[in-house]
Amino acid sequence: MNDAARFAVHTATTKPWDLETAVRKYAEAGVAGISVWKEALEGHDAAKAGAMIRSAGLSAVSLVRGGFFPAALAAVRRERIRDNERLIRVASALGAPLIVLVCGADPKVRIADARAQVEAGIEVILPFAEAEGVSLAIEPLHPMYAGDRSVINTLAEANDLCERFGSPSLGVAVDVFHVWWDPALEAQIARAGRLGLIKAFHVCDWKTPVLDMLEDRGLMGEGCIDIPLIRGWVEAAGFNGFVEVEIFSRRFWAMDQDAWLRMILGALREHV
Amino acid sequence: MNDAARFAVHTATTKPWDLETAVRKYAEAGVAGISVWKEALEGHDAAKAGAMIRSAGLSAVSLVRGGFFPAALAAVRRERIRDNERLIRVASALGAPLIVLVCGADPKVRIADARAQVEAGIEVILPFAEAEGVSLAIEPLHPMYAGDRSVINTLAEANDLCERFGSPSLGVAVDVFHVWWDPALEAQIARAGRLGLIKAFHVCDWKTPVLDMLEDRGLMGEGCIDIPLIRGWVEAAGFNGFVEVEIFSRRFWAMDQDAWLRMILGALREHV
Repeated sequence: MNDAARFAVHTATTKPWDLETAVRKYAEAGVAGISVWKEALEGHDAAKAGAMIRSAGLSAVSLVRGGFFPAALAAVRRERIRDNERLIRVASALGAPLIVLVCGADPKVRIADARAQVEAGIEVILPFAEAEGVSLAIEPLHPMYAGDRSVINTLAEANDLCERFGSPSLGVAVDVFHVWWDPALEAQIARAGRLGLIKAFHVCDWKTPVLDMLEDRGLMGEGCIDIPLIRGWVEAAGFNGFVEVEIFSRRFWAMDQDAWLRMILGALREHV
Repeated sequence: MNDAARFAVHTATTKPWDLETAVRKYAEAGVAGISVWKEALEGHDAAKAGAMIRSAGLSAVSLVRGGFFPAALAAVRRERIRDNERLIRVASALGAPLIVLVCGADPKVRIADARAQVEAGIEVILPFAEAEGVSLAIEPLHPMYAGDRSVINTLAEANDLCERFGSPSLGVAVDVFHVWWDPALEAQIARAGRLGLIKAFHVCDWKTPVLDMLEDRGLMGEGCIDIPLIRGWVEAAGFNGFVEVEIFSRRFWAMDQDAWLRMILGALREHV
C-alpha cells in the first residue's frame, strides 16, 4: 500500500513514547493519522492534546477504548456506563471523531447474558455519543478473548448489533488480528459495507505461535494473515479511511522506537 | 451429571500415566470409556491394547488424532494422507470406532486454500475409513489455532463439510473448549443433531486468563463455560454417548495423578 495519506498509527504501538513524542515522531515520519490510547492521555488536557495533534498536521483517528459493559453487579455496570460517558466527552474535547468499543466480558457472567449487557450498555451511551457528535465502533475481538475481554467475537455479531440500533453514529472496527480466521469474513465485510458501518480498519499480523495472548502481535508480513486480501474486501465495501497499525508487542516495545517506526512504515508499504 | 456409564477420559488428560496404568486406574475409578492419544499407543500392538482395554471393562471411545491435511508441498500432503490411512488401520485394530480429526493448518498456506486442502484430504481418506468400519469426527478447533493447528474453527464449517460428503461415517466432535464462545453454537448443535453428525462430546473448562494456548485448559467448574447448558443442547440434539474429559494441562500433569483423577470424577458429577 503506497497511499501514505491513509497511514495511521495507534499510540499503544509505540508504547514507550509519551503522547508528545509519538505525535512528533509520527509527523516527522509522514504518518497522517494517530489513534490515541486513553492511557496515553493521562495527565493531559484533552483539548490541548487535540490542538497539539492538529498543529503537527496529524488527524486524530480515534480514541481507544470504551466499552467493558458486562459485569456481575449492576452497580459496576452503571459505573462502566459513566466511564463511557466521560470517555465520549474526552473524545469530543480531543477532536477524535470515533471511540473504539472493546465490549467487555466477565467470566462470572454467562456469555449470553454478557452479550445482552453489551447491548444494554450501548443503548444507554449511544444517544450520549450522538449528542456529542462522536461515533462508536464495535470492534469484534478474537474469540480467545471471550472469557475476559469481549463477548462480541465475530463481525456478524457486531453487524447484527449495529443493524438493530440503526444509528449512523454506531458502526464497526475491523481489525485483521481479530477476524482473519472467520470463514464468513468476506461476506460480513460486504454486509457492513452495504449498511455503511465500517468506521475503522486496523492491521497487524498473526504469528505462529502466539506466545502471549495480549502482547505478542506480529508486524504485517511476519505472520499468516493475508492483509492485502482483507484490505481489498474492506475497500470493495466502500471504506477508504485510515489504515491503522495497532500492535501490542513486548518484543517490539523493547526495541529502539525510531527503528520500530521505520519497520512499521516499511511493512505498511510492503505487506498491506 | 451422574450417569457414570457415560464417563470417559482421554489418556492425554493423565499424560504421566502409560496406557496400561491409565486403563487400570480408569477402570478402578469407575470410568467407562477411554479415548486413546495415538502417542500413548507407541510401542504397543494396537490389537493387544484393544484387548487390554476391553478386558478391563472399558470401551475404546476414539483414537486421537488424525487430520493435519494442509501443507504447502503436495508431497507433504500425500504423506499426511498415508499417515491418516495408517491411523485408520490402527483404530480398526484397536477396536476404536472413531478417529477424531484435527484438520490442520499451515501458516504458509492461505486459509481459504488450507480449507480446500482439508476437504480434499477428507475426500481421499473417507472411503478408506468406510471400508475399515471406522468413523471420522471433524473437531472444530478454537479460532486461536487457525494459524497452525486447524483451519476448521466453527461447528458451522464442520457441519457444512459433513453435509457436503453425506457419509454416515463422517461427523463432528463437539469440544466445549473450542466452541463455547460461538453465538451460533446452539443452532449449529441442533443442526448437527438433525443431520445425525454428533459423534463425540468433550469437556474441560476455559480459565481466565489462559496462560498457555495449548497446555492450560481448566477442569470443569473452574472456568467460564456453561457446560450443563451445552450438554443440554447436545443431548436435545440426540447425543447420548460418552462425555469425555480431555484436559491438556501442565499444571494438572504435575499433580499426583490419582488425586487428579478423583478431581476429574468429582467435577464430572458437579459441573457437567
